[in-house]
Amino acid sequence: MFIHRHKVQFYETDLMGIVHHSNYLRFYEEARVAWAHAHGLLDYQKPGSASHFAVYETQVKHMKPTFFGDDLEIEVQARCEGNRLVFQYRLHGRGNEVCSVAKTVHVPPGVGFKTTKIPGRYESHCE
Amino acid sequence: MFIHRHKVQFYETDLMGIVHHSNYLRFYEEARVAWAHAHGLLDYQKPGSASHFAVYETQVKHMKPTFFGDDLEIEVQARCEGNRLVFQYRLHGRGNEVCSVAKTVHVPPGVGFKTTKIPGRYESHCE
Amino acid sequence: MFIHRHKVQFYETDLMGIVHHSNYLRFYEEARVAWAHAHGLLDYQKPGSASHFAVYETQVKHMKPTFFGDDLEIEVQARCEGNRLVFQYRLHGRGNEVCSVAKTVHVPPGVGFKTTKIPGRYESHCE
Amino acid sequence: MFIHRHKVQFYETDLMGIVHHSNYLRFYEEARVAWAHAHGLLDYQKPGSASHFAVYETQVKHMKPTFFGDDLEIEVQARCEGNRLVFQYRLHGRGNEVCSVAKTVHVPPGVGFKTTKIPGRYESHCE
Repeated sequence: MFIHRHKVQFYETDLMGIVHHSNYLRFYEEARVAWAHAHGLLDYQKPGSASHFAVYETQVKHMKPTFFGDDLEIEVQARCEGNRLVFQYRLHGRGNEVCSVAKTVHVPPGVGFKTTKIPGRYESHCE
Repeated sequence: MFIHRHKVQFYETDLMGIVHHSNYLRFYEEARVAWAHAHGLLDYQKPGSASHFAVYETQVKHMKPTFFGDDLEIEVQARCEGNRLVFQYRLHGRGNEVCSVAKTVHVPPGVGFKTTKIPGRYESHCE
Repeated sequence: MFIHRHKVQFYETDLMGIVHHSNYLRFYEEARVAWAHAHGLLDYQKPGSASHFAVYETQVKHMKPTFFGDDLEIEVQARCEGNRLVFQYRLHGRGNEVCSVAKTVHVPPGVGFKTTKIPGRYESHCE
Repeated sequence: MFIHRHKVQFYETDLMGIVHHSNYLRFYEEARVAWAHAHGLLDYQKPGSASHFAVYETQVKHMKPTFFGDDLEIEVQARCEGNRLVFQYRLHGRGNEVCSVAKTVHVPPGVGFKTTKIPGRYESHCE
């Protein structure tokens, strides 16, 4: 199981005193990028390599809030479905409780977001 | 049909030259807040009144990208489902094309995110 | 005097219940872009035209906080200093009070941020 | 010398392919918070303790851009000037080059941003 860690920053909170919900998509992106880099599928020197992860769909559930200073742990799992990459995430907050779960779907973009086949090297890393 | 307008800012783009996907949740929040304010359900002087819209779940689909300077139009519809408020959105970009659709689910938070009943004044504004 | 308006969004607040200070640079960018577009110096269809406004230096002072729902008014003034564009801003919040002032300095980037001459069409719009 | 590390995220870039300038204030805040926490001056469980660092003024210079995936190193120095806390920063990017320097000034906020004395425990940590 791949795990990514993120420390909640002051600028990620909102006036309710909790992390603003839009930031979870950023945390999940961080985790996805770290996963892809760890598997040799993303090269920071060639940012275009991130384009294989163009976001087609996101679903996020919030069970508990997270707070300034929290040390989040995000579990990442990837699988291939036809020409789509599907990631699933589980985000742990204080006391190791599951605070949020999510799923994101990605398509390799062709011209005008036309979907093309997933490169073979991705498939070998999907479960 | 309630419509909210948003002009895409430079700081909302990413290195792929398009609006970063996390910002759509911000656009949809803008539209939801504008809807709630227009219906007298949210008072900017009492930010706590926004807490009736704590985010429980979000689902976003991206059909086409949007770009710096685009004048987005976001349609908003609300309905009540038991003690939940459900919003649906349709976001139009260049050439009035639908670029994204979304659904967000909200629960009035009690202590520890325990769900309570939706105040009656919301129900009369839901479809 | 060029004036840009911005309504403070929920996602721009932090746990102190006020607008997070990093967002002021975003508001000032909004105002600068609106100024440049109004003067025909920036074309949204050619995002590269924004590169003449690469940020070299920023200075922001915060006299009073601003809040969720505030209707901000931002005054913008531009002047040329050699090969630099210098913008000055005054941001008005509740009760029309000045909440923040700022100055940003911009250089037309050449290769590797080497400064080049400001195109003549900018000079005619500077004060 | 206190050093804070930050890995540049995809969502921190803009359409020019570099980190958006507003994010540097976020990186500097991260570094300042880490410094304050390391010196026992900030308690994540009591977010109000961050209020001693209300931002009064910021100055940022950008000498070189930073990029997706860069491992930034931020040096932090603090000093007291009367009732103000002054932080200075130096941000290193690729090849350990200095890409940005900054200074931020903070006042302990009283009612209505009236300045009060800096608590003695801060002074012993300033240089």
